[in-house]
Amino acid sequence: MMVVMSGDATHQDAHQVVALVRSAGGEAFVSRGGNRTVIGLTGDAELLGSIGLHRMRGVERVARTSDGYRLVSRVPGVERSVVDVAGVPIGPGTMTLIAGPCAVETPEQTLQAARLALAAGAVLLRGGAFKPRTSPYSFQGLGERGLRILADVREETGLPVVTEVLSAGDVELVAGYADMLQIGTRNMQNFPLLQAVGEAGRPVLLKRGMNATVEEWLMAAEYIAQRGTLDIVLCERGIRTFETSTRNTLDISAVPVAQGLSHLPVVVDPSHSAGRRDLVVPLSRAAVAAGADGVIVDLHPRPETSLCDGPQALGGQDVPELARAVEDAARLMGRRPARDLTGRRESGESGDLTGRRESGESGELTGGEASEDRGLVTV
Amino acid sequence: MMVVMSGDATHQDAHQVVALVRSAGGEAFVSRGGNRTVIGLTGDAELLGSIGLHRMRGVERVARTSDGYRLVSRVPGVERSVVDVAGVPIGPGTMTLIAGPCAVETPEQTLQAARLALAAGAVLLRGGAFKPRTSPYSFQGLGERGLRILADVREETGLPVVTEVLSAGDVELVAGYADMLQIGTRNMQNFPLLQAVGEAGRPVLLKRGMNATVEEWLMAAEYIAQRGTLDIVLCERGIRTFETSTRNTLDISAVPVAQGLSHLPVVVDPSHSAGRRDLVVPLSRAAVAAGADGVIVDLHPRPETSLCDGPQALGGQDVPELARAVEDAARLMGRRPARDLTGRRESGESGDLTGRRESGESGELTGGEASEDRGLVTV
Amino acid sequence: MMVVMSGDATHQDAHQVVALVRSAGGEAFVSRGGNRTVIGLTGDAELLGSIGLHRMRGVERVARTSDGYRLVSRVPGVERSVVDVAGVPIGPGTMTLIAGPCAVETPEQTLQAARLALAAGAVLLRGGAFKPRTSPYSFQGLGERGLRILADVREETGLPVVTEVLSAGDVELVAGYADMLQIGTRNMQNFPLLQAVGEAGRPVLLKRGMNATVEEWLMAAEYIAQRGTLDIVLCERGIRTFETSTRNTLDISAVPVAQGLSHLPVVVDPSHSAGRRDLVVPLSRAAVAAGADGVIVDLHPRPETSLCDGPQALGGQDVPELARAVEDAARLMGRRPARDLTGRRESGESGDLTGRRESGESGELTGGEASEDRGLVTV
Amino acid sequence: MMVVMSGDATHQDAHQVVALVRSAGGEAFVSRGGNRTVIGLTGDAELLGSIGLHRMRGVERVARTSDGYRLVSRVPGVERSVVDVAGVPIGPGTMTLIAGPCAVETPEQTLQAARLALAAGAVLLRGGAFKPRTSPYSFQGLGERGLRILADVREETGLPVVTEVLSAGDVELVAGYADMLQIGTRNMQNFPLLQAVGEAGRPVLLKRGMNATVEEWLMAAEYIAQRGTLDIVLCERGIRTFETSTRNTLDISAVPVAQGLSHLPVVVDPSHSAGRRDLVVPLSRAAVAAGADGVIVDLHPRPETSLCDGPQALGGQDVPELARAVEDAARLMGRRPARDLTGRRESGESGDLTGRRESGESGELTGGEASEDRGLVTV
Repeated sequence: MMVVMSGDATHQDAHQVVALVRSAGGEAFVSRGGNRTVIGLTGDAELLGSIGLHRMRGVERVARTSDGYRLVSRVPGVERSVVDVAGVPIGPGTMTLIAGPCAVETPEQTLQAARLALAAGAVLLRGGAFKPRTSPYSFQGLGERGLRILADVREETGLPVVTEVLSAGDVELVAGYADMLQIGTRNMQNFPLLQAVGEAGRPVLLKRGMNATVEEWLMAAEYIAQRGTLDIVLCERGIRTFETSTRNTLDISAVPVAQGLSHLPVVVDPSHSAGRRDLVVPLSRAAVAAGADGVIVDLHPRPETSLCDGPQALGGQDVPELARAVEDAARLMGRRPARDLTGRRESGESGDLTGRRESGESGELTGGEASEDRGLVTV
Repeated sequence: MMVVMSGDATHQDAHQVVALVRSAGGEAFVSRGGNRTVIGLTGDAELLGSIGLHRMRGVERVARTSDGYRLVSRVPGVERSVVDVAGVPIGPGTMTLIAGPCAVETPEQTLQAARLALAAGAVLLRGGAFKPRTSPYSFQGLGERGLRILADVREETGLPVVTEVLSAGDVELVAGYADMLQIGTRNMQNFPLLQAVGEAGRPVLLKRGMNATVEEWLMAAEYIAQRGTLDIVLCERGIRTFETSTRNTLDISAVPVAQGLSHLPVVVDPSHSAGRRDLVVPLSRAAVAAGADGVIVDLHPRPETSLCDGPQALGGQDVPELARAVEDAARLMGRRPARDLTGRRESGESGDLTGRRESGESGELTGGEASEDRGLVTV
Repeated sequence: MMVVMSGDATHQDAHQVVALVRSAGGEAFVSRGGNRTVIGLTGDAELLGSIGLHRMRGVERVARTSDGYRLVSRVPGVERSVVDVAGVPIGPGTMTLIAGPCAVETPEQTLQAARLALAAGAVLLRGGAFKPRTSPYSFQGLGERGLRILADVREETGLPVVTEVLSAGDVELVAGYADMLQIGTRNMQNFPLLQAVGEAGRPVLLKRGMNATVEEWLMAAEYIAQRGTLDIVLCERGIRTFETSTRNTLDISAVPVAQGLSHLPVVVDPSHSAGRRDLVVPLSRAAVAAGADGVIVDLHPRPETSLCDGPQALGGQDVPELARAVEDAARLMGRRPARDLTGRRESGESGDLTGRRESGESGELTGGEASEDRGLVTV
Repeated sequence: MMVVMSGDATHQDAHQVVALVRSAGGEAFVSRGGNRTVIGLTGDAELLGSIGLHRMRGVERVARTSDGYRLVSRVPGVERSVVDVAGVPIGPGTMTLIAGPCAVETPEQTLQAARLALAAGAVLLRGGAFKPRTSPYSFQGLGERGLRILADVREETGLPVVTEVLSAGDVELVAGYADMLQIGTRNMQNFPLLQAVGEAGRPVLLKRGMNATVEEWLMAAEYIAQRGTLDIVLCERGIRTFETSTRNTLDISAVPVAQGLSHLPVVVDPSHSAGRRDLVVPLSRAAVAAGADGVIVDLHPRPETSLCDGPQALGGQDVPELARAVEDAARLMGRRPARDLTGRRESGESGDLTGRRESGESGELTGGEASEDRGLVTV
């Protein structure tokens, strides 16, 4: 069971809900996002349904959910969430491009990659300081030095930073530098890490395990949400199959499936899915057309010298095509490039940051987001 | 090795190439499509490279290929193929929608489904008379009676017919009614059947095996081509993975991968991939955005009463959304809906049937097909 | 629903069951094996349960089954089947080794391979005359010439022959030479072929599709059984996964799973599963230990010159180890090597051909077969 | 590159090797097991091959290895390792049964499960105090209280304890109670955790990731070894495939494959592979027959009330069959049940703890372990 609080509900309102649930012998977990607060309940559902929760102040909706994920469940009639990352929206109505180098190598390389990202229309900078590598003899990332480089480049370019954290012990350190914490595919079921980032008070980018079902992915998100953070963005990055022409198989269907089951935004990583530079643009377009709320790609000023995953990184010459592909596809879907919003915002027009589409603004190519939502099986 | 003949090469020209190859101790397989003729060679490649094939009349190009598929290989600098199905083009530059019921059940149901297909913008009618079913106790299709119904509906609506053939012994029968022969996913490696359809003189729709690699799929196409028919359309329809929220996992990456390796057109079947009605529209859009040359969907006048795969069939109320999604995505990719071409063609404008894009016609949204091709690893 | 006839039931008894079922508006499919006759029913189960079938002459048991496979279902309390191939038993109580070359290449190679097979303890000769090959340019088998070689080698060695048939049109030809018809992994869902072999009156070796679930495999067996032949042996041969160190992944669990769901014998092909010579012996031992009723392996007098799958074929130097491994493992499981029975049988002791274990004969190592059966979920 | 030290080499000998490698510009990682010490080298292989390492005191062998795993590579001519867990050997020549409850629930349940384990012939007790659960609302284990229960039960029964650790921050705590640290399937690529257990000075049981290739599994072992601990036991526990009749698919081939590539012992977990009680005994037998060095199974005094994975746990009534199956299969393979050795050891006969097989002791059923090793492709 899950209680959705209204937009103007106060902390006090949430506390009262928790108190009532506990007095009835249940337990309640409050999870807060920039966009909304929800409260997940455990205990006797029939009893909890009878204590008048829906009449409490600040309560918008009380809904039954699956027994597995609750806080991240999509409730019919309640909009999907927008996650705000240092002013950048990710969610319905907008198209958010995240780009940057797989690994932070040097200040120059990172700055150049960030400039390519800006040229491509990106509004968030990705880059790894702690790199999970299959071999212990591979480059493992620059660690805190890499984090400092990312912070410097953010200073220089204005791009908020998304970077991976590998262990619960590093969460505080990484959260000190990053605007958004990334959980990598190999850590999707590293439960102590999920719990630690859930308590860190930063938005989280949760990559799908390369072997995880959509249900397990949502359950991993629930681990984070249960510890307090509802600002979670799901990232599809390919699953393992028998096919060998690509590194993994991008599960494009997972985008509408996850959006039907959960209110969380879903983005796609075409670079790590395919592991091939030549597929990044077509897969980015496909991702947007399938309804993704954003795309995250590897960019490197000199892919051929990259210390990590060079064969999949786009270089400078690929940027115009990527930019055009994402922008055209966003227009097809009736979505506004997040860049437009963040640009406006700098001149004070922050009112539109929730990403809601204004009527008429999507011109002839309407129907995208709306139609994607229609008819999906929910909760 | 492979010899690509020029557009104006004659049968005699091809025969002379074959004769020269044989005189040098090699073997040659001539494969003809509406669009081009190619000749695949086996034997001592070094020797065959030295006998002056490139100087023979009607020869456009002599190219090295993989040892596996040859006739279906993509040769750098040679355009991808357009397959003509009773006047309907499938290939680069156009977007071909194929639609119809999973199984032919009655004349009325088939006619109504065909009318829905027309309303959705489809230019080819799909429908099964011979149904491969997992259980011997399931409905197995109407057989020849179903073929006659399809022919009647073609008469009524003008839509050419695509239908599946299950065994070599039935090829002649089915080819007597159908405009295009379909090889189903379970028969992708039914080699005697591939050889029989390769000799039947009809275009072929070759579904990917649900467990087949892209390389095996192209090798299956080679079996058909080696027997004479180069008019083959590849159809991605989902592969088997551990994910259970969809029936199979649409391998969207296979579209650009196959187009990079082969000159054959590639279409996508979102209905059988996902097995869920609510995913057909988003996956159709994604397919077009990834560069597919067409989309094939299940339509049924009353999906809830369907004798076969009802949960995935779109019904009448879904048609406008499907039509808009495919048309908008085609425009994004700079492709012309095949309907426009076949429509024009009725009034005599058949010149554009090869599907080449006229300069300027794609407006602002250029770059789709062109960019999809750029940078792909070929042969 | 399914009717199991008793061992002394006559054809007339079966006909009367069919007649009664039809008179009640149902349909009945009679399937006969050397071991037993069963009749599968479709129609109103409640009604058919009320017409007194269990009281008819020759009826041993009337049982509910799944709606999918019926004739091949395991009914609690009814023993698993023994399939007799020209006097060689495959089933509980015995261990049947099948061996021979992947492909028939020459009379000498086939004869030498057969002699190796005999030395290894094999009682059936495998060998392909029609070879399904991924590439149309690979060796496709000798066709009927290969069948004649197999027949000659059978004459010479006394080993009955198992060989593959690729299309419905060839069934009569192949059945004219072979003692057992093999359906290959790529044809497991070639339904017209399954139906044709079901009518051919020969025992069938049905390989599991490399992408098929156990349930689909049993459904494929049902297609054969429904056409009259109940003498079907299931063969696990590896499934497709992401692991690349072996060609496919031997699904060893499928042995007890299939034996729990079906009364049909199950054998294992370690050669095609792994595609590596060094794994054949350990996997053969594992197969027997998991409860398999037999093992089928590739043998070649000179694996390094093999025209087909050389890297997985055992050669002469491997034979003693294979022989010892299979025999020791059979003893562990309380099974008698089929060789002992066929040997005895030549001197007239045919009474034991059903493969039932005589009490005490398995010495200290009892519990194998018996325990494997205990506790399995059935029908 | 890798240096294998001889059995009587001293710490000083290893230090001298490290010093020489560093003086030549390379880096050296010393990894110690009860059985042997090896030193992995990085740097210019040609140069390092020329500095006379093979002539240094205490050096048994200098070998080239793959670039990935080095310390865990199998070097031709060097025996596979025996890992000693508080006096219990795991490795060639012995058969080690590990058993216990999936999760520690109460002192009574744990003690009863341990007594069942002893009755089954187990020599190590498994049991989870920290449980990684897919859902945050599932029972997460008793934590340190569970560790204390395990220690008490060890006191009572004499069984050393294997238990899982979930995060680097808990390694010290868990190592304070456990005799062997388990890395679960979801953490196989949790690299900070691997490094932490590599420094903890306890033997490690490394489960294969359910989606990991054998190569990645060995690379994960290398992460541990690189931090100092060579006492690592690999545990195959099933991989994820499309088959749904079992929870995962036991990759039985991985046993001989991993033993061919690495000197580390390999055990099999049939309980978590299949997720079905009825398959545990046949799969245990198959594991031993495939060459596994041990088997680890779930036991519970009352499986039906288990808080975790009840459907797969064996209960008291299954113990005799399990005991007999493992013991008979061990005899088939010429292995001594580790119980015999640890039993003897209590009366002072500790000389055989390395697990080497005495000549003649395996009776007629020789050839198991020996033949499993013969012919495998190594390093």
